[in-house]
Amino acid sequence: MIRLLVAGATGQTGGASLEAARSDDRFDLVGGISSSKKEVAGCLMSRTVADAPDADVLIDFTLPGASVALIRDAAKRGMAVVTGTTGLSDEQEDEIREAGALIPIVRSGNFSLGVNMLLALVEEAAAKLDGYDIEITETHHRRKVDAPSGTALMLGEAAARGAGVTLSERGVFDRHGQTGPRKEGEIGFSVQRGGGIKGDHTVSFFGENDVISLSHRALDRRLFAEGALRAALWVNGKAPGIYTMRDVLGLD
Amino acid sequence: MIRLLVAGATGQTGGASLEAARSDDRFDLVGGISSSKKEVAGCLMSRTVADAPDADVLIDFTLPGASVALIRDAAKRGMAVVTGTTGLSDEQEDEIREAGALIPIVRSGNFSLGVNMLLALVEEAAAKLDGYDIEITETHHRRKVDAPSGTALMLGEAAARGAGVTLSERGVFDRHGQTGPRKEGEIGFSVQRGGGIKGDHTVSFFGENDVISLSHRALDRRLFAEGALRAALWVNGKAPGIYTMRDVLGLD
Amino acid sequence: MIRLLVAGATGQTGGASLEAARSDDRFDLVGGISSSKKEVAGCLMSRTVADAPDADVLIDFTLPGASVALIRDAAKRGMAVVTGTTGLSDEQEDEIREAGALIPIVRSGNFSLGVNMLLALVEEAAAKLDGYDIEITETHHRRKVDAPSGTALMLGEAAARGAGVTLSERGVFDRHGQTGPRKEGEIGFSVQRGGGIKGDHTVSFFGENDVISLSHRALDRRLFAEGALRAALWVNGKAPGIYTMRDVLGLD
Amino acid sequence: MIRLLVAGATGQTGGASLEAARSDDRFDLVGGISSSKKEVAGCLMSRTVADAPDADVLIDFTLPGASVALIRDAAKRGMAVVTGTTGLSDEQEDEIREAGALIPIVRSGNFSLGVNMLLALVEEAAAKLDGYDIEITETHHRRKVDAPSGTALMLGEAAARGAGVTLSERGVFDRHGQTGPRKEGEIGFSVQRGGGIKGDHTVSFFGENDVISLSHRALDRRLFAEGALRAALWVNGKAPGIYTMRDVLGLD
Repeated sequence: MIRLLVAGATGQTGGASLEAARSDDRFDLVGGISSSKKEVAGCLMSRTVADAPDADVLIDFTLPGASVALIRDAAKRGMAVVTGTTGLSDEQEDEIREAGALIPIVRSGNFSLGVNMLLALVEEAAAKLDGYDIEITETHHRRKVDAPSGTALMLGEAAARGAGVTLSERGVFDRHGQTGPRKEGEIGFSVQRGGGIKGDHTVSFFGENDVISLSHRALDRRLFAEGALRAALWVNGKAPGIYTMRDVLGLD
Repeated sequence: MIRLLVAGATGQTGGASLEAARSDDRFDLVGGISSSKKEVAGCLMSRTVADAPDADVLIDFTLPGASVALIRDAAKRGMAVVTGTTGLSDEQEDEIREAGALIPIVRSGNFSLGVNMLLALVEEAAAKLDGYDIEITETHHRRKVDAPSGTALMLGEAAARGAGVTLSERGVFDRHGQTGPRKEGEIGFSVQRGGGIKGDHTVSFFGENDVISLSHRALDRRLFAEGALRAALWVNGKAPGIYTMRDVLGLD
Repeated sequence: MIRLLVAGATGQTGGASLEAARSDDRFDLVGGISSSKKEVAGCLMSRTVADAPDADVLIDFTLPGASVALIRDAAKRGMAVVTGTTGLSDEQEDEIREAGALIPIVRSGNFSLGVNMLLALVEEAAAKLDGYDIEITETHHRRKVDAPSGTALMLGEAAARGAGVTLSERGVFDRHGQTGPRKEGEIGFSVQRGGGIKGDHTVSFFGENDVISLSHRALDRRLFAEGALRAALWVNGKAPGIYTMRDVLGLD
Repeated sequence: MIRLLVAGATGQTGGASLEAARSDDRFDLVGGISSSKKEVAGCLMSRTVADAPDADVLIDFTLPGASVALIRDAAKRGMAVVTGTTGLSDEQEDEIREAGALIPIVRSGNFSLGVNMLLALVEEAAAKLDGYDIEITETHHRRKVDAPSGTALMLGEAAARGAGVTLSERGVFDRHGQTGPRKEGEIGFSVQRGGGIKGDHTVSFFGENDVISLSHRALDRRLFAEGALRAALWVNGKAPGIYTMRDVLGLD
């Protein structure tokens, strides 16, 4: 049984991870960490890793500032980490790298097996489908506040890597008005927002005579929690270093 | 047999209309009109309606300036008109209205039966699906120079009409960066460009627990030519006035 | 506040209706009815309507035999009924009709607003899209035991009604091997089963040059419970008779 | 310039290959082969390879009996072969293998780059997405006489190969009536027929919480002709042997 600590325990993915771990007998849920006053029934809550009970693995779905502090403390206590926090500054990235010299850390912007499979397939297709136009479309619920989604951007990075270009040079995020013909090599993004969509992503390769489309559709948010638990099982006992879900899932 | 004159005969939809009419024995193709020097094999080409042979119906797929001149001349000669030219100024619109007092004119931004059916269904759905988020997405080939397509905007107008709002107030054309949550009542547009796509359009109604999507996919550009010929058959002999494809197709 | 009784309270849709009513202050949940021994926390359970507390409306998601007995008892006690039970014999249908002379009854094979909207749009499209080939496809989770779904068949009936034909003559359910060319006027069904799909349905109209597709996707099973509650609010106080969700939703 | 001979020159894909070669200056179209009386303007037509002018490559889109005779003659004359003929008997397969000892032969059920890319991705995904339910759906025009398409079956074979099973044991082609729950490890096929669809294929992997879908859509039949020409360029000068489009496209 892996002793598990969950940070961001009152947030969406953190909360789902905590609930999934609670009913999974491969885990001993030793506590949650939350900066807010909220309690989670039947779970010991702490404010920091330093205050928390000892654990083998820390799962972290928080914000950049909190995340860096949590991971620094986890490194001190020798806990492995699974972190889904995104949007870190260069300095914060440096701190994660330093922690990765001491403990094993799995980092990912999306913990689902399906999305990580898609990332691998997109990179491969982009490497072969020379001359095809790449477009990425995503749809999320009406409460999502940023666009495109982090996962759409990861898919764009994978496509760019496959095509041997960089997304920062090729990404196109707005098409409105007199745009002129599509430029060769663009990677286009388009976004829909509405209702209760948990997350749809499609990468299409448009040729003159055919189209290849690679899609992922999330049906339930438990998806991300299950991926985080899978990573927690995998990371426990690994050598120090920074790992990705592709490592966890054996996709390379 | 309807005597037919086709303007914009060297353009894409005009040319396809001319070809389709040529092999259709309900039509006597008396000539084409084109401002360029290009010839069309086996078809008498004129520069203006005044120079052209007499005809029952003029089909016009040109640009606003040319279109207004052509329709003015057609009105003088008593020819019915089918016009797919879009993007007219207010003054040009006035001229079309004046011509419509003298001759029957069918105007449309899209001549396909399928798209016009979709316009009717979208308006009806938008009127009933209160509280659902409306999003319109379109995909066209890499050569298309404007976004969203005229048909996507027509679908947006139909949705707005159904919902009892105006598109100019509700349309959202860009979602990039920190957008915040989706605002109630928005009508979102998103655009893909790539390869040889002839034109895909989808209007989706996103609810918290379900999604309704209404789509159209063009398989072949003959679609628009066939619709224009259908309109030409219908408009011949009608009373003066401005008509739409919904009139032609009996969709009201 | 409408006093509500829910039969099939330990089943999937009945249970979801009971839970949804419990947290909705337009309803006073007076009890559940279940033939099994199972209890539902905090809810008085009875075996029959005769044993149950008095109520304004009975919601019934059971099996044909149980359903007829429940509705007969509801008619005796003057309760309105919302029933989603399907697959009744001709004699059972007669019994429902008799009860409908005494109390108002809403019957439907699918209580979602979206699906009922789709039924109306499909009928309308089928009436206009003469010469298009109609195909219906549905996808459900791996646990579903019958194919095509009841909703797919309802969509087929709507398409047949619109086209002025009967589904029993036109429905095609298998295509495997040397099928020969598609016969004019067929209404084809195709089925996918997999994973946790809550229910996707698409009706497509295929023409030589374009395709129109009308789709519904269920995101969460609460959809059906919410529709049943909406019907319960509507049916309370109505005149005796048999009503449909199209009446409830004002779709005619 | 490669000297090219096209058999099945009056059929759909053979005819398209002939037309595409004619306007491509990498090819010298030396003649066509057709068993029917039909002529193709400006192209010398023969009844057999023995009667035909000398060539570097024979493209063959015919029927099994004719195909074997053509390839036998090509082997005698030392021409390379690109063949898309399918449905050969075991004895006919043996004859192809014998010819493959003498000349280089590219064989494929589908010559498009996109479909061959999809085959590779499907095999890879099926190898990793353990526990997901695999379903293959295809749509073709109303004139297609067999179901599922050869390409859908190739996709099924690729999925089975990836999953380490055999399609003949796992393929399910009909779902109608009381089917019971989906059996673990099934590979389901479903088919739509309608209008002018050139060929849509989707392989989906359904999990409890997400779905991955890999799709191909043909926009124009020139797709297959272009793939055959690409194979003809590649096969010219290769060592004797039987090759696939994955070899041609470098997808392994």
